[in-house]
Amino acid sequence: MLRETKNRQVILRSRPSGIPDAEHFEIVETPLPDLADGQVLIRNIYLSVEPAMRGWVSAVANYSDSVALGDVMRAFAAGRVEGSRHPDFHPGEFVTGMFGWQDYAVVDAKAIERKVHQAGLPLSTSLGVLGLNGLTAYFALLDVGQPRPGETVVVSTAAGAVGSCAGQIAKIKGCHTVGLTGGPDKVKLCREMFGYASAVDYKAEDFELALDAACPRGVDVYFDNTAGRISDAVMRRLNPGARVIICGTASVSSWDPIPLGPRVERHLLVKRARMQGFLVFDYAQRFPEALREIEAWVRAGQVRYLEDVLEGIEHAPGSIAGVYRGENRGKRLIRIATE
Amino acid sequence: MLRETKNRQVILRSRPSGIPDAEHFEIVETPLPDLADGQVLIRNIYLSVEPAMRGWVSAVANYSDSVALGDVMRAFAAGRVEGSRHPDFHPGEFVTGMFGWQDYAVVDAKAIERKVHQAGLPLSTSLGVLGLNGLTAYFALLDVGQPRPGETVVVSTAAGAVGSCAGQIAKIKGCHTVGLTGGPDKVKLCREMFGYASAVDYKAEDFELALDAACPRGVDVYFDNTAGRISDAVMRRLNPGARVIICGTASVSSWDPIPLGPRVERHLLVKRARMQGFLVFDYAQRFPEALREIEAWVRAGQVRYLEDVLEGIEHAPGSIAGVYRGENRGKRLIRIATE
Repeated sequence: MLRETKNRQVILRSRPSGIPDAEHFEIVETPLPDLADGQVLIRNIYLSVEPAMRGWVSAVANYSDSVALGDVMRAFAAGRVEGSRHPDFHPGEFVTGMFGWQDYAVVDAKAIERKVHQAGLPLSTSLGVLGLNGLTAYFALLDVGQPRPGETVVVSTAAGAVGSCAGQIAKIKGCHTVGLTGGPDKVKLCREMFGYASAVDYKAEDFELALDAACPRGVDVYFDNTAGRISDAVMRRLNPGARVIICGTASVSSWDPIPLGPRVERHLLVKRARMQGFLVFDYAQRFPEALREIEAWVRAGQVRYLEDVLEGIEHAPGSIAGVYRGENRGKRLIRIATE
Repeated sequence: MLRETKNRQVILRSRPSGIPDAEHFEIVETPLPDLADGQVLIRNIYLSVEPAMRGWVSAVANYSDSVALGDVMRAFAAGRVEGSRHPDFHPGEFVTGMFGWQDYAVVDAKAIERKVHQAGLPLSTSLGVLGLNGLTAYFALLDVGQPRPGETVVVSTAAGAVGSCAGQIAKIKGCHTVGLTGGPDKVKLCREMFGYASAVDYKAEDFELALDAACPRGVDVYFDNTAGRISDAVMRRLNPGARVIICGTASVSSWDPIPLGPRVERHLLVKRARMQGFLVFDYAQRFPEALREIEAWVRAGQVRYLEDVLEGIEHAPGSIAGVYRGENRGKRLIRIATE
């Protein structure tokens, strides 16, 4: 039944002080264990690469336990059921879950997040726009940001998997959308593919002037995926009652020790503004409703997405660092088998 | 009808770069203007001293316009109507409003905030626990902080006019209250007068250890009146879902340029916590309901208050700097006449 008897696995070998790179991982081959009762064998097809993986391999306590040294790298993946000793899952079904960076996963059924039914849409979208990235954009923007029509919504990492979706949902809600991104290629992507009213290159010398020009009525909602100097510039432009969604901190290479930045208290006080942290798993009960709505937007062409697919598991170890260097265009995935 | 023909006024003479002190003001005597139709003459009895006055005399845009050089210092005051050409106000009535640091104020009736009816309670309370300080504590804690019974509520400037009231309201709501204050005298006040479960001296060498001991279950609500290193210590102890109320920034001597501090984004993200700025005037429509509730607590002895009354208008110019040095005990007022 198994197509291969050996399972290639990407193992965490050492802890990075900042961003994990190829040197911190090793690819090994191990035999596949037999299925116990209640378990499912999944052939991974797409492995996900997340900025959040930096936190997962860090020794500092975070949302969840750190990945242990010697363990398979924790990762979301989408794959096909190849064997099952659980009545709810059957060979040939496509599923997503925390299956790790490996060819095959033997998991308890409860580790499976969901079955993928998206007629006509690629399986890869289940890890991006129709996965946690789209869900993050949806709940963070709508529940925490609470944008109103006509308001100015600024998004950092605007061309990224989460940012691009957030910008497009804000546009659907009638907002003036401003994307912050690095370099002229991504500025063009923001404008032409993701429909931002303005896109500003934070690496450009005239960043602050361009930000002023893009936000003539100030900033009502800031969807922050970066922290750092990009956020510092946005904070100075908040309107009264502004909402700042803290969704990621991509521009900060290490939080140990906590880096210094301009204090935010005065901005928040004078503008009666709010900063609030967001984690998508707090909204798990509402994932199905959100996925239905995002899928409808994708099918209608109102939410477009980009995927940056690397071919072969050998690209996994260096893939996180590449995201932090900004080399991906859209959601980064690793394809390790055919659908 | 006028008891004195000359009006002593405290005039803003120069702009401080940080905290205003005596040298930035001058006391002058000017003649009182006649009342025009619709105007009211008020004999000020208590002048209020606010930390917020630092912002009012700053050249940097804030909630309201800066006090102009040469103008009477903007201030809340409580006084008695001595003359009126408005049908709603009559000699002998006690009123509060933005009457300025001066013996007498000639104002349009709309400048009067409210008439004071507090049988058996001193007029001075209308500027403190039954004025903007109490209202600030009430709305900031309950509306922004949303404390739940059993949660840990930490208050900075815990013995101050706002902080002491916030701590007592949190206790009424069933919270574990922790006061942060400077020096053993104020620690004693927090424990014995304001009923904090714990009080911690932020000036003590063992501040961080004492804070840990005072908050064994972490921090759910932080009522922040200081910013600075006191807040930095609290931010590291936030619980998931914590609410941080940004009500004042007393420990920061200047915001121009914005001082550096440890970035807050990671705390907010990992804990899905919220920081939100607060301004009491946003709640003006609900002042009457809140005052009724606070007054009932004061009469029942559940909310106690301290007032730090300086005698004579000559103390006004140096009074703000004294608040920033922490020399007051409770609400600082200047009494310039008898009730």
